Amino acid sequence: MASLAESGWTRTTVATVAARAGVSRGAAQHHFPTRGDLVMAALKHMTKVRLAGLRTGQAVPPEGSDRTRWALDQLVGLYTGTLFTAALHVWTEAAVDAGLRAQVIPLERTLAWAAYRLAVALLDVDGEDPRVRAIVSGTLDLARGLGLANVLTDDAMRRSRVLDAWAEQLDQALARLRD
Amino acid sequence: MASLAESGWTRTTVATVAARAGVSRGAAQHHFPTRGDLVMAALKHMTKVRLAGLRTGQAVPPEGSDRTRWALDQLVGLYTGTLFTAALHVWTEAAVDAGLRAQVIPLERTLAWAAYRLAVALLDVDGEDPRVRAIVSGTLDLARGLGLANVLTDDAMRRSRVLDAWAEQLDQALARLRD
Repeated sequence: MASLAESGWTRTTVATVAARAGVSRGAAQHHFPTRGDLVMAALKHMTKVRLAGLRTGQAVPPEGSDRTRWALDQLVGLYTGTLFTAALHVWTEAAVDAGLRAQVIPLERTLAWAAYRLAVALLDVDGEDPRVRAIVSGTLDLARGLGLANVLTDDAMRRSRVLDAWAEQLDQALARLRD
Repeated sequence: MASLAESGWTRTTVATVAARAGVSRGAAQHHFPTRGDLVMAALKHMTKVRLAGLRTGQAVPPEGSDRTRWALDQLVGLYTGTLFTAALHVWTEAAVDAGLRAQVIPLERTLAWAAYRLAVALLDVDGEDPRVRAIVSGTLDLARGLGLANVLTDDAMRRSRVLDAWAEQLDQALARLRD
């Protein structure tokens, strides 16, 4: 994932990753015959670790903090940093490589569903309600869009203002649904 | 842009684009010495044309339609289709190529500002109000996130539900600001 984020798809091969990991190219190739095999295995593993970490911490917003605003920061964290940048390289390559796309689409569905369940838990809302679904699903789209805006430049200040405003809208929308 | 969207950065060169356009490689190279020169010129030109088209049509939401929902469709249109997919290939390459990044960052700033002014005009709101700015800026992030979700699979049905819900929230938020 670090190699993808730093060097992109073209310059991330089984050989370059093996060299970076300090293992022989033969050993790496034994486990991962193609770049697609290696990248997809790493992406699945790292995403699973990240989501599990967020689920473990999900019940504990810091004392005195606004739960919604805190939840938004957790969700946006999924779409910023090395793992998101690496995934962006894979997604972009998959747009022009049908073989890779066939591997990425099922993973994308799994991740979208895991992110949705996480968001519902963090926000403490009823994920079965279709009105909640549209709002929480849109919140994840916002987080993804903020992540993409952060790839080339540090967008943290603008993002913080957008999330403050979004948290307020979200609280009012969810309060209306509870009435 | 079509070559980038269909084939990606690596397989879009001055030579392949010249062949596709039916001009000699020498003629193309005379005007655009490097792939970066060619791609950035095409991206700037096509984006300018697209934004100008949207500005021309901005005052005329179809009779009887909901203005906000219509505006959201126009804005999401900026982040779906060939031009967005092409731009995604350029942005992703720029993440790992400092020379290209130096060209892309000023263009990104110009486009972000143009998209903001367009959104303010389409929604008919006061773009100078910092509270409006946070909400409208977030709306563009949502649109970008929806665009990214649409690159590998057709996401139109889910997107439509998300935009219905956001149009409702946006109307209520903007009404509160007008009070």
